Amino acid sequence: MKLKLNKEELTNAVSIVARAVSAKTSMSILECILISAADNEIKFTANNTDLGIETVIKCDKCKIAEPGTTAVEARLFSDIINKITDDPEEDIIFESDGNIIELKSSTSTFKIQERDPEQFPTLPLLNEDNYITLSHFTLKEIIKDTIFSIAANDSNKMMTGELFEVNGNSLRVVALDGHRIAIKNTELRDIYGNYKAIIPGKTLNEISKIITGETDAEVNIFFENESVMFKFDDTVVVSRLIDGDYFNIDAMLSNDYETKITVSRKELLSHVERSTILIRETDKKPLVFNIKDQSLNLKLNTVLGSLNSDLLVNKSGKDLMIGFNPKFILDALRVIEDEEVSLYMTNSKAPCFIRDEKNSYIYLILPINFNQAAY
Amino acid sequence: MKLKLNKEELTNAVSIVARAVSAKTSMSILECILISAADNEIKFTANNTDLGIETVIKCDKCKIAEPGTTAVEARLFSDIINKITDDPEEDIIFESDGNIIELKSSTSTFKIQERDPEQFPTLPLLNEDNYITLSHFTLKEIIKDTIFSIAANDSNKMMTGELFEVNGNSLRVVALDGHRIAIKNTELRDIYGNYKAIIPGKTLNEISKIITGETDAEVNIFFENESVMFKFDDTVVVSRLIDGDYFNIDAMLSNDYETKITVSRKELLSHVERSTILIRETDKKPLVFNIKDQSLNLKLNTVLGSLNSDLLVNKSGKDLMIGFNPKFILDALRVIEDEEVSLYMTNSKAPCFIRDEKNSYIYLILPINFNQAAY
Repeated sequence: MKLKLNKEELTNAVSIVARAVSAKTSMSILECILISAADNEIKFTANNTDLGIETVIKCDKCKIAEPGTTAVEARLFSDIINKITDDPEEDIIFESDGNIIELKSSTSTFKIQERDPEQFPTLPLLNEDNYITLSHFTLKEIIKDTIFSIAANDSNKMMTGELFEVNGNSLRVVALDGHRIAIKNTELRDIYGNYKAIIPGKTLNEISKIITGETDAEVNIFFENESVMFKFDDTVVVSRLIDGDYFNIDAMLSNDYETKITVSRKELLSHVERSTILIRETDKKPLVFNIKDQSLNLKLNTVLGSLNSDLLVNKSGKDLMIGFNPKFILDALRVIEDEEVSLYMTNSKAPCFIRDEKNSYIYLILPINFNQAAY
Repeated sequence: MKLKLNKEELTNAVSIVARAVSAKTSMSILECILISAADNEIKFTANNTDLGIETVIKCDKCKIAEPGTTAVEARLFSDIINKITDDPEEDIIFESDGNIIELKSSTSTFKIQERDPEQFPTLPLLNEDNYITLSHFTLKEIIKDTIFSIAANDSNKMMTGELFEVNGNSLRVVALDGHRIAIKNTELRDIYGNYKAIIPGKTLNEISKIITGETDAEVNIFFENESVMFKFDDTVVVSRLIDGDYFNIDAMLSNDYETKITVSRKELLSHVERSTILIRETDKKPLVFNIKDQSLNLKLNTVLGSLNSDLLVNKSGKDLMIGFNPKFILDALRVIEDEEVSLYMTNSKAPCFIRDEKNSYIYLILPINFNQAAY
């Protein structure tokens, strides 16, 4: 196998597939990248068995002097091609003899051990019947706006993924961790079928790092029973799904409320951030929202000290005193892009909803019980 | 005690002295900042007993409504003043009653516990007889150009500091770790006495973060037997010295050589960086420099693979084969600012010197033994 590749194209392809390389594994072949060259294209594949990524360089600038297939340790290979020359435009010669891989720039030659490509687990390609199309931008936004609400540890496996639910021309994405729910509703440009999939948070995190965020580039998402496949540019990402029926979200949602406040997002954000200073990790003290007339008073008492903070809001409905974990309020406020946000509440024991008029985003946050008399 | 201070001035003063606050200590008063207000200035002090820092806000913008002295937990205080308002120009009201400290912005009030200022260890101020004057810029450069050569662990205490040696109008700063020596010679603008001090690396690291790097602002360094004091702007830093006689450096230096190469610093840097890809931490394999005619060939063989790299150099004297730990070569090349660097060598067992014509910097690097026949 003998190839000539442009350094920039090569490092770009390797950095994409490297996201599916296992960091720690007892199967050392999973630490590798599979490289195969044939028919005027060079294919790079990584597969940690939960997540697999394949990307292709079409040979406009590269040259296949001798086709073939090989495997290399991903981290070492990536370090070498990054540093073998300082000139991104330079060509790198890649040659393997079935035992040693030689990488050559104009001044430097590296030789490293080849791995057995036969051991590499092939990437299952899905059939392309059930799919939707989104822009890079929209998919990136959906992930950013919800991913913080999945559970950090996998004591409940289902909570480590996000529900993607397609009904005709609408996509609903849901993430929840038992204390809060994040929902993002997106109108699709075309009408599709009805599909449901629980996609692992890890897969979504990696996807969101690979896609560009452009509004005019498209991602196709293909749904099967046990897997999902993302296709965009010259790249394919295949991921296992989380098995089972997702939580019944609709039973938890409601548009009724007794108290609604509308407030500058930035101002509320900085007042709530202020309160986190007094909270150490193990502390479960609530930040108490006291809504009275057109003002919102925030109070927090912890072992470190106390905070008392006031801001003006636009209120409709009843006065209300309700306590929250400030982290959950902050996470939602940080991703919302509107200048003003509205909080809908019923009483001190019922969830608070932060949402826009169209329900394009809904953040449900459970309140914390506290002794009202102490505030 | 009651004060009104501009947020920006206050956060700036606290961030300076915070560098001398103990992170982990059994004496909780060392986690505090001492604040004392009198005579139209507010003084902030931190002291971890090895290093103490004091800085003053002169009350042009601030106001002392009631003078006094108090102590506060540094991290909490710093978090609060950073976040109590988003407006850097806003005034913060600081009030203490001997038990509780109240911090107020226009919208928020924090209350935290006061600490007993009586327990705070006072900063020893030095007499100002023996001193030198440098610009912020020069001192920052000297530290940057030498600090990487001190020993990382303190199995030999003396190697964790740097020798500052003043003779009339010359300052020599030396750092060494048993494998290499970094020396920086600086001509001072005035003539001073003869002083020697071994300043802890930790002190120098903190100093270099506080000073601005300006060429027209001055730092005075005062020398005493057991301590050193840096004075600049409205800040005083006092540090203990490392006790003992420093190594006899002069016996290790020499201007003789058999082989001299001059090479583009940037080019040599990227070739040597390339070699580090193949080195894992425990590996002690040398990077072999083979100097022949006007070319430098670099070779490295490790368990991960091999590198063979060529570059052109300007050589005078004999051909030579010599091996180095590439990290030591890199550390020196990274701080040198000259376009071209010269390496002076004698044989494969004698130290290599990287230095300029005027000896304004000298980096001595010991070679590594290796089997020449294998290369």
